[in-house]
This record gives sequence, structure tokens and C-alpha cells, in this order.
Amino acid sequence: MKIVVAPDSFKGSLSAFEFCNIVEEVAIKHFPMLTIVKVPLADGGEGTVDSLIQGGNGQFQYAEVNDPLFRKIEAKYGILEDKKTAVMEIAEASGLHKISKAEQNPMITSTYGTGEMIKHALDQGCRNFIIGIGGSATNDCGIGLIQALGAEVLNKNNKQVAPGGEGLLEAVKIDLDNFDKRIEESTFTIACDVNNPLTGKTGAAYVFSPQKGATPAMVEELDKGLKNYAKVIHNTIGIDIENVPGAGAAGGLGACFSAFFNGQLKSGIEIVLKTTALEEKLKSADIVITGEGKIDTQTAYGKTPSGVAKLARKHHVPVIGICGILEADSEAIKEIELDAAFSIMNRPCIVEEAISDAKTNLESLIYNIFNILTINKK
Amino acid sequence: MKIVVAPDSFKGSLSAFEFCNIVEEVAIKHFPMLTIVKVPLADGGEGTVDSLIQGGNGQFQYAEVNDPLFRKIEAKYGILEDKKTAVMEIAEASGLHKISKAEQNPMITSTYGTGEMIKHALDQGCRNFIIGIGGSATNDCGIGLIQALGAEVLNKNNKQVAPGGEGLLEAVKIDLDNFDKRIEESTFTIACDVNNPLTGKTGAAYVFSPQKGATPAMVEELDKGLKNYAKVIHNTIGIDIENVPGAGAAGGLGACFSAFFNGQLKSGIEIVLKTTALEEKLKSADIVITGEGKIDTQTAYGKTPSGVAKLARKHHVPVIGICGILEADSEAIKEIELDAAFSIMNRPCIVEEAISDAKTNLESLIYNIFNILTINKK
Repeated sequence: MKIVVAPDSFKGSLSAFEFCNIVEEVAIKHFPMLTIVKVPLADGGEGTVDSLIQGGNGQFQYAEVNDPLFRKIEAKYGILEDKKTAVMEIAEASGLHKISKAEQNPMITSTYGTGEMIKHALDQGCRNFIIGIGGSATNDCGIGLIQALGAEVLNKNNKQVAPGGEGLLEAVKIDLDNFDKRIEESTFTIACDVNNPLTGKTGAAYVFSPQKGATPAMVEELDKGLKNYAKVIHNTIGIDIENVPGAGAAGGLGACFSAFFNGQLKSGIEIVLKTTALEEKLKSADIVITGEGKIDTQTAYGKTPSGVAKLARKHHVPVIGICGILEADSEAIKEIELDAAFSIMNRPCIVEEAISDAKTNLESLIYNIFNILTINKK
Repeated sequence: MKIVVAPDSFKGSLSAFEFCNIVEEVAIKHFPMLTIVKVPLADGGEGTVDSLIQGGNGQFQYAEVNDPLFRKIEAKYGILEDKKTAVMEIAEASGLHKISKAEQNPMITSTYGTGEMIKHALDQGCRNFIIGIGGSATNDCGIGLIQALGAEVLNKNNKQVAPGGEGLLEAVKIDLDNFDKRIEESTFTIACDVNNPLTGKTGAAYVFSPQKGATPAMVEELDKGLKNYAKVIHNTIGIDIENVPGAGAAGGLGACFSAFFNGQLKSGIEIVLKTTALEEKLKSADIVITGEGKIDTQTAYGKTPSGVAKLARKHHVPVIGICGILEADSEAIKEIELDAAFSIMNRPCIVEEAISDAKTNLESLIYNIFNILTINKK
């Protein structure tokens, strides 16, 4: 009996790896007839790179890059087992968490460091990129990013514009002559879970820049800048990027990757499932076990257990969801396309106790589930 | 697929009947291929009569009897579907809860009412008796009880002794000439979960009479009385009852039923399992579901899930335990002889919430367990 274990983390208590290892330990100890295939997952957000690297036998890399305010930092990313695929999060170089609250200013913060991180990976031989673009400190539509890779974003005096948001309005032309040629040989898959356009009231500046430190006046200037820069992009490569869904993600990085990297914007979980080859692994499985800290009516909307369930369902493999908090009745469980769902809770207790008991309780629940699953095999 | 559902109650939140009905409802709604056989159980203690009557399509009876202090009360007992078997608890007539704290006095409290209840059932045609003997207010070794059924317990002046504990020391002879003849035609099965002898430091007076209001002086007098009365019984019917295990139960009622009723002392759960014919029902089952408010290391020692598990194991039927609080790791679950155990809890919460959510949570858990059980049938 082959069981594929493909959980997300239980945030605050159990990583996806710990979950997988506990299941494996129970099987080794009590159910030697079970084959456990561990596929720790993430949802494309926080922890995704770690999950993909560790799950895919990859290796971590460390690149010296510039932070959003041009201070040297070490950015971590990963290269998968194939040695060709880099997995990175732009927040490692250009994240809001890299600067202090007082330093937040999307007029000057730049994605330059992300460009350097990509260059570092190209230098390592990578030609496939999986890039998570959440959590940026920037609204520069990737001006800094492409500058770091050799592009010249020029003003009316034929000088490079500033690498932050203030460069957007100034830009009149983009010179791609020295843009890194290796990019054309590469594929870029962008994990992007927002659909905002580049400009306007639902665009990058209006929706996201205030949380990156933009004042109302800056918001207006940034939006104008993005409109101007979209025209410059159109003039340069003939692509109208302004209203592409997701173009407004990460201060315009969605637009940047679409325009200059032929980037494919996909949902985080979609990328994670593809990268881990979960579908291949579960095709021959008898049961799939997935999980997340909480399984509720929201789970049907793109969270890990739902993504796993859809793949399992496609191949007619039963799928069991395991969680800390189960707020899903039979109708909700059907909607998530799970066959069954169980909470690891085993007594009335406070959240802190539930978290500290998570490992023991998961072990106990898995033992009991395996006992039921193997009832007919005894 | 036939599923026998044989739970105890979840004290304070779910009766065994409610448990059974919830399981049946889930099956009717979502799993029409499942046949549910409901066998609500009890552990021989509180609620046992209700459970046996309702589970066995019996009928409740109400007898006017004397309480431990000779006040008229209505005592409830039941007659099973066969119209021949009475199920009763002596506490209904002679229970400690029938008198106030201030009235507690085992020198005068009497089991006379229990004798009247038995007579009432004999009058209804009953010839089999299942009697739970927990919770008595008395230490009269059943003097009152047999007096109510026509026996004469006489003192040296050939007068009937007082029907309470004070009669024990006074008794010199028992005249059974008028003892109800129907008793000889009847069987008496006594639910008794203690093994104490009649007399001495581990006997009825020393161990149990203090909680029934006996002062230290009374304890000594009662123990002396029991020793005397045991001799009188021996002289009367040639049986030495003093050291029979269980003779000391319920202020000596264990001895009384052994001596004058040919009573068979059995554990409560053993009687419940036999009366409900659980073994017959589970022989052809594919799965047995049992349950109790708490499943823990104590469960192995005679509680309902353990009793059910032993029977199921005997017939190689897998058995799943369901509870509110699960404090049993894989080793403990094996010891209880369950195949698997699940808590109905699904989130961190306080006890009151757990109790009020019990029905919904049980419904959800059963739905999920049935989904797993039927995975291989899909």
C-alpha cells in the first residue's frame, strides 16, 4: 500500500517536513506494509523556497546583493536537483522586512538586488527560474531589477534614471542592448497570487504602495510614473502591459517579468505542485494524505489541501486531510474534494497546549488512521 | 457492510442512544450501503437500567415502595421485551440519594423497599432479575429486603428484628416458611463491581458504612452485627457467606442475594453485554464502533469500550473507539484491544464548548470515518 504524504505546514507548530517525518515514523514502527512517499509542500507564500529545496533535494545558495536601499546583504535562494532550476523569493533581496519602518519609501526603494540574485543564479548555470514575488518593499516596476541585468532605463538626457519608484516618471526609453542574453535562453515562472493591473485605482500604487510607506502624494506620483513607464515599455518592445492581470503585483514586478522575461504568472500552489512532481508521485498511490493548520470553507479556494485534493481526484486516489482546526462539515469537505478530514485534537485545551502537543497528537491520529486503512488488509 | 454501534454514554453530553442515532443518521444521509445495528450500552452503573430497557424494547414499571426510612416513594424499574426479565437498581428504593445527609444512619436505614420492588416484579410475572446493587444507603445485609418478601428474621424473643443495621446483632434465627416461593422459580443476576467480603477490615461496615453516615462506634457495631448475622445465615441454610467475594457489596446485599436468591454476582459490563446480546449481533458485523466520554489507560480495566473490544476481538471484528477525550497512545490502544480510537474534538476549546458541540462533532467524525472505511468500496 503506497501512501503519498503531501501536507502544508501547520503554521506555528509543525513544518511540512516534520509532518511527513512523523507519518513515516509511525509507518516504520507499526505498519511495515505501508510505503510512505514524502512530499512536503507550501502554498507559494512564506516558506515555499525552503519547502521546494528541501523537498526536491536542492541546495541553498547565498548571493551578495543590494537591499532595497543599496546596502550589501546576503540573499538566500535555492537550486533544485537538476542544477538548472533556481527557486527564489524577491523578498530575500528586495523585501519590506529588509528595511525599517522609518526607511520605507517606495520612491527610492529598488528591486536592484533581485536582479543581482537572478544574475548570480544565471552564473551558476540556472536557466529555469521559479520566483515568488510577495512581500516587496518596492514600487519600481522592476527598473532596478533590469538595470542590474544590463538594461539601461534612460531619461530625456540619455542618462540612467534612478533605480526606485522616482525613475518611473523620468523614463523615456529602455535600451536592452546589454540586457543579459542568458535571459532569453531561460524560462521564468512567477508565483503570483494577486490579479491587480499595473495602474489605476486597483493598480500597484493605489493598492499596495501605502503599506510600503507611500504618502497619498507619492501614491499619485507612483501611479503616474507607472502609466508613463508602461508607455515606455510599449514603445520599446511593443507589448501593452498596463492591464495584464497580475502586472501590478510586487510594485509592478508582475509587469516587469511579463515584459522582459517572458514570465508566466501562476498561482503559488500550482507552481509548488508542478515543481514537486506531486501528480507523477500520486498517480500510483493508494491514498494521499494532505494537511494544513486549519481546514475550513476557505480551504476550497486555492490552499494546499485543495490543490492536492484536485490532483488526487483527477487520478481517482482517495485523499485524507489532517489539520489542527477542522471547521468543515460534510458539505465543506466535499467542496474541498477531500474524502475525509480529521483534526489532531484529542481533548479540550487552549491553543498553546494544542500547539505544543501537535507532534504527539499527529502521531496518535496517524496511527489510528493507518489502523483503519489497513483493517481490510489484516 | 454491517456496522454495530455499541457505545456507552458520554457523561454530561451524549447518551448512548443519541450516539447510536447520530451514527444511524449519518449512514442514512451519506452511506446508504451501510447497515447500522444500534446497541446502546452502559457500564452497569448509573443509567444501566435505562440503557437496557430502551435498548431491549422494554417497558418501565413504577412500584410504590418504602424508602430507606419507610416513607412511601415510587421506584422505577423495567421489564424487558420477553416480559419475564426485570431490570432494577436497588438505589431506586434503598439509595443513599433518597435520604438527606442528616438522615443518614445505617443502623436504621433498610432495604425493605428493594424487597417490595422485587415483589412487584414477581407480581408482574417476572422470573428473571437483573439487579444493580450500587449506591445503597444501608448496611442491613438485606434483612429488610427478605422481610419484605415474607422471611422472618427473629430475635431471642422470637420477634422480628428491626429491619435496619441494628437488627443484625439481635438476630438469632431466620424463618423462611413464608419467604416468597416464586423466588425459587426465579434467576437473579446481580451487577456487582466490588469484591469485598462481608465482614472485617475490608468488609461492608469498615469500607462502606462511613460514607452512609456510620460513626466509628457504629462501624464496629455493624461489623459485629454482620458477623453474627452471617452465623445465623449459616445456621439457617448451611451456607458460609462471610468471605464470599462481593458479599460485602451494598451493605451486605451481595451476601443476601447469594444466600437467599441463589444470586450470581457478575460485573456490570458483563451483564450489559449479555443482556443486549451484543455478541450475537457483532458476530456478523464488518466493523464495531464503541465509545465513551474518555478513553484512557483506565479503559482497559472493565469499562464499556474494553468489554466491547474483547467481544469483537473474539470474533475477529475490527473495533473503533470514539471519545471526547483521548488519552491513549498506540500502546494503550492495543491494551484496550481497540483497532483505532478517535476523539470528536476538532479545535482548541473549553470543556463547556466541547460538551455543547459534541453532537455536531460526532456527526462530522463519523462522516469522515465512514468515508475512510468505504474508500475501498468506491
